[in-house]
Amino acid sequence: MAARKGLVIVYTGDGKGKTSASLGAAMRALGHGWRVLIIQFFKGDWPVVYGELELAKKLYPQFEVLQLGKGFVKIMGDKKPFDAHVDAAREALKIAREKMLSGDYDLIILDEVNYALGYMDFKLLEPSDVIEFLKQRPPKVHIILTGRNALPEIIEMADLVTEMKEIKHPMKKGIPAQQGIDF
Amino acid sequence: MAARKGLVIVYTGDGKGKTSASLGAAMRALGHGWRVLIIQFFKGDWPVVYGELELAKKLYPQFEVLQLGKGFVKIMGDKKPFDAHVDAAREALKIAREKMLSGDYDLIILDEVNYALGYMDFKLLEPSDVIEFLKQRPPKVHIILTGRNALPEIIEMADLVTEMKEIKHPMKKGIPAQQGIDF
Repeated sequence: MAARKGLVIVYTGDGKGKTSASLGAAMRALGHGWRVLIIQFFKGDWPVVYGELELAKKLYPQFEVLQLGKGFVKIMGDKKPFDAHVDAAREALKIAREKMLSGDYDLIILDEVNYALGYMDFKLLEPSDVIEFLKQRPPKVHIILTGRNALPEIIEMADLVTEMKEIKHPMKKGIPAQQGIDF
Repeated sequence: MAARKGLVIVYTGDGKGKTSASLGAAMRALGHGWRVLIIQFFKGDWPVVYGELELAKKLYPQFEVLQLGKGFVKIMGDKKPFDAHVDAAREALKIAREKMLSGDYDLIILDEVNYALGYMDFKLLEPSDVIEFLKQRPPKVHIILTGRNALPEIIEMADLVTEMKEIKHPMKKGIPAQQGIDF
């Protein structure tokens, strides 16, 4: 019998809770002594300190968080050349692969990677690169991918997929994003 | 201008990620120095140690987790009288109210409370009790309610609602629940 593969989990959809759910999954895994890596594809230069990263610093040595993306692409005042985003996303995936193959992690979270695969008009990563990454994972390494608009080929490869669907959002009622809840 | 009310957030739906998302929200809030209370309505005598609670013990003094429910109702070998479940759920809501009104918490998570409001054939709490609870919340206290099948009157009161929709689940492929991922 082949060794059981770790699970591929996808949190997608337009609703709030995708990154939170992966963070909760990280906490649960850490509580069991797992070694967890989070790679954030889009929060590299978001100008606030994330609460969860503040927490991470106080947490276990086996919890690593890398912010490797170049921030939002073409919105929120982004003026960086598109290639800089592409390079950053490819570099992030490369590092993720090295870390995955090192055997040092039980759970690897690629936060917002779906977004890098082609949200709106740009595409920072090729689907085949991410699929290859998933195929290369060692037995027992679990992978979580987050971000809206997960591609069908990613969903096809996943064991567990939850769509976070927005039913109601406070910003639509004119309530601004707030520290502690939204970031 | 009236003081801004804290948000009422609902994570509902049949997909995985509701409790994880609320746990992630708790982590984010704790990272900002908020005082967080989680009340679990249904995990009181589930026979495993939850990873997230192991973690919680190592966390901040301002993080409290109370397991007040009596476990699953009429499934998973439950043989307790129905009244015992009703009493436990009511007591849990009463304690939640006392804690909320104490001013000692910024974020209170009622985990699986939707389930207590009437999943399948039983109902442990009256919707009016939970609605009353929400109306009584002090300014700036945020509440998260989780559990599938959130009632329309709860959704009506909420500021943010995400439906976690199951697209794919490993148990349907014959992969059993596993420690570190599912509990």
